[in-house]
Amino acid sequence: MSDRLTHLDEQGRAHMVDIGAKDVTHRICVARCEVRMAAETLARISEGRVAKGDVLATARIAGIQAAKRTAEWIPLAHPLPVDSVSIDLMPSPPPHGDSDAVLRIEARVETHWRTGVEMEALVAASVAGLTVYDMCKAVDRGMSLESVRLVEKRGGKSGTWSRPGEPR
Amino acid sequence: MSDRLTHLDEQGRAHMVDIGAKDVTHRICVARCEVRMAAETLARISEGRVAKGDVLATARIAGIQAAKRTAEWIPLAHPLPVDSVSIDLMPSPPPHGDSDAVLRIEARVETHWRTGVEMEALVAASVAGLTVYDMCKAVDRGMSLESVRLVEKRGGKSGTWSRPGEPR
Amino acid sequence: MSDRLTHLDEQGRAHMVDIGAKDVTHRICVARCEVRMAAETLARISEGRVAKGDVLATARIAGIQAAKRTAEWIPLAHPLPVDSVSIDLMPSPPPHGDSDAVLRIEARVETHWRTGVEMEALVAASVAGLTVYDMCKAVDRGMSLESVRLVEKRGGKSGTWSRPGEPR
Amino acid sequence: MSDRLTHLDEQGRAHMVDIGAKDVTHRICVARCEVRMAAETLARISEGRVAKGDVLATARIAGIQAAKRTAEWIPLAHPLPVDSVSIDLMPSPPPHGDSDAVLRIEARVETHWRTGVEMEALVAASVAGLTVYDMCKAVDRGMSLESVRLVEKRGGKSGTWSRPGEPR
Amino acid sequence: MSDRLTHLDEQGRAHMVDIGAKDVTHRICVARCEVRMAAETLARISEGRVAKGDVLATARIAGIQAAKRTAEWIPLAHPLPVDSVSIDLMPSPPPHGDSDAVLRIEARVETHWRTGVEMEALVAASVAGLTVYDMCKAVDRGMSLESVRLVEKRGGKSGTWSRPGEPR
Amino acid sequence: MSDRLTHLDEQGRAHMVDIGAKDVTHRICVARCEVRMAAETLARISEGRVAKGDVLATARIAGIQAAKRTAEWIPLAHPLPVDSVSIDLMPSPPPHGDSDAVLRIEARVETHWRTGVEMEALVAASVAGLTVYDMCKAVDRGMSLESVRLVEKRGGKSGTWSRPGEPR
Repeated sequence: MSDRLTHLDEQGRAHMVDIGAKDVTHRICVARCEVRMAAETLARISEGRVAKGDVLATARIAGIQAAKRTAEWIPLAHPLPVDSVSIDLMPSPPPHGDSDAVLRIEARVETHWRTGVEMEALVAASVAGLTVYDMCKAVDRGMSLESVRLVEKRGGKSGTWSRPGEPR
Repeated sequence: MSDRLTHLDEQGRAHMVDIGAKDVTHRICVARCEVRMAAETLARISEGRVAKGDVLATARIAGIQAAKRTAEWIPLAHPLPVDSVSIDLMPSPPPHGDSDAVLRIEARVETHWRTGVEMEALVAASVAGLTVYDMCKAVDRGMSLESVRLVEKRGGKSGTWSRPGEPR
Repeated sequence: MSDRLTHLDEQGRAHMVDIGAKDVTHRICVARCEVRMAAETLARISEGRVAKGDVLATARIAGIQAAKRTAEWIPLAHPLPVDSVSIDLMPSPPPHGDSDAVLRIEARVETHWRTGVEMEALVAASVAGLTVYDMCKAVDRGMSLESVRLVEKRGGKSGTWSRPGEPR
Repeated sequence: MSDRLTHLDEQGRAHMVDIGAKDVTHRICVARCEVRMAAETLARISEGRVAKGDVLATARIAGIQAAKRTAEWIPLAHPLPVDSVSIDLMPSPPPHGDSDAVLRIEARVETHWRTGVEMEALVAASVAGLTVYDMCKAVDRGMSLESVRLVEKRGGKSGTWSRPGEPR
Repeated sequence: MSDRLTHLDEQGRAHMVDIGAKDVTHRICVARCEVRMAAETLARISEGRVAKGDVLATARIAGIQAAKRTAEWIPLAHPLPVDSVSIDLMPSPPPHGDSDAVLRIEARVETHWRTGVEMEALVAASVAGLTVYDMCKAVDRGMSLESVRLVEKRGGKSGTWSRPGEPR
Repeated sequence: MSDRLTHLDEQGRAHMVDIGAKDVTHRICVARCEVRMAAETLARISEGRVAKGDVLATARIAGIQAAKRTAEWIPLAHPLPVDSVSIDLMPSPPPHGDSDAVLRIEARVETHWRTGVEMEALVAASVAGLTVYDMCKAVDRGMSLESVRLVEKRGGKSGTWSRPGEPR
């Protein structure tokens, strides 16, 4: 663990970290979250090809678009030109002993730039999940977005990091 | 539970729900989430007034600004003029038997409009949490955003809803 | 035909027309355009449910999102809160004697406000069409967006207008 | 013609094409469209230097600004830093046998990046044209935006492409 | 003078002031600033109708567009639908004993809303001035934007305020 | 002084200057301004650590965020990826013989790009100052933003420039 919060200068004031001296390298980040919902809600999303297509397609587009504009949401994030964004949405059956189901979301973002794309991946996963909430809230207000987390980071000086215990 | 996903028309294609016939009423939504982090990270955030001020102040401003632009991130959300947004960030000690601590986030949004502000509140809470992640990720990459959820909704035709089991 | 271009003041300088004295009424506008493309391109879009779903779904979402932010693209347009936006995309066979096919696009926007939503409808139709171009340009660079036009305007002091010769 | 729509992955889901492996090269795209309007409307735009200045100047600025933000309009477009944008607006007399006149619009965009600027040029031309519509709609609601099209593309692996039959 | 900074709650944390209980009334604000520049620079702007048209026209459009998006710049400003924005740019000769000239800028914004448009007017004037700087900086880097100030505020509970010593 | 306004082409029409042939170099710009206010207002901002923290912290965040989006406000500015932004806010006692105090603002922006960051620095300083105005306007409507100016420019073909008479 490094010694100070890099977004705070020596007097504790927020500033954008200077990335000018960092190398332009290929950087990849993957983030995940789960949308927890009633099993019936997930069934509605999944049943009927067209309806399913649109809920998931809308969430996917929302995540991609949000990733591109991450620096507008996150005050100290650097604007950067993403190379690619992809979003996977995977309906999953309720675990045994649970009446709720989950929609698993994975966002993967790549760039060639001087800083990583952790925030882009986390923003993409969050916005995809919130979009699912928006589209289904009339039938299931109790849905929640669980465990928005970085699971993999590659490239840059710190090298590769993988979240322990996370399925590949 | 109503019979269909309101954001999908009869052929399953996404469209913005027509809110033209709804009444302009006072509407309030409250959303919560928790940022889970190493106890040491939370201590760093909390220790030293200036440093604390800025991490939390930045997250608060980020959440407020994101709430105002919710309709840009959530494709089918209606643009609406918020009356007020407030964000609370509450450092909490780790529960016993857990080495991690949590920063509790609550976002409250109000409007006088034809539709509710669920998404504004959820977006505000999420962005505040992601901003905390961004500012601390260099020291604690394993942080996560837990349980982004609506906890209260007031106003509009459906009246008041409170999430069961949630502390007031 | 009125006597002057309302966006220009008496000295010819651009300004936003003052809509403060206008009534808040229900206003509806419908715009159309056609994306002209090789028949083979349209077949690719239409064949296979998933693929079709996503090209058309992406264009639909793009149009809806652009409509909400019309005042950002069109300098003298007033910001206004749209009640609803819907986008129809209708693949059409090539007319006889033409080797090209068309994808017909119709955007419908409603609001309760002091000014009409002509620009919102035109922006929505244009952006939906340009999105189709973007998604198919690798296979058909010669596609074009034809005849972006207002076809109907209802509400406000000037009442209802329908474009002559346009199918309902 | 290549074999698949590059914006769709093997399962037909939308994603941003990965441009990370492409070379940064000098890329130029030119797009055109025509605004069709009553001859009297074009005369109004053209008569009086100040008035003309402002309608055309506003459209030009609108097109330039929109080009810079193309990736916000077009969901799967890559954000990229444009080197230059220029917009020409050329009033043209009505062709014989036609009572309508046209304002010809040409947008030229250049970049040094890993992907082309087709969409930037098309967006710039469209927005310039829609801005003319906005400024003149009070006197000529029947105006239309005709044939938004790419006319030239240079740079990148696919080399130079020129639209057949288009005047240089 | 009221007793506390309204944007800070009782614990000093930033939040958006709740305007829900305020009346929707007609509100007008006027702001001014001056761009100070070499007399030669102002002459360049003013000489030649076309050139002048475009520097001033671009600044005017920039100010109008920025006013509409004030709530994106100013973190605690409320989003609100402006009724009208107008920008005046008035070249003025250098005062005697001064080798510099000034371009006077006045922005006027109106709305019917629950809060005033001070920030919209100040943002419009600032952005118009900064745009002049941008367009002329290659010939006069030493230009400055002087005295961005509110000069008039009408409407709302606090009634009319005029800045002392300011010419009407 | 060069011979023409680079943002105008030979016919006086606005266009974005082509920066494609310029070198990517390290570029730094510093801008300053002062917020003039009643001494009592500055005392309110400065007294009490938390309150002070938030007024200044909010202004700092606002300036940083605005700098990143400069090309959205300034029509002919090039979009560019900033490496770092920092904002200093320095309360200063009223000069003798003056009952007003000033808050000094300095914004510093760096990039590695083909064009300078003058506008980014000026936008950051302006928006930080306007944010202070917004947060304090309820107690001191007569505040003003004085002398928004570039004070230093380094990097690029024109080399280093420092504003004469400006303290380092």
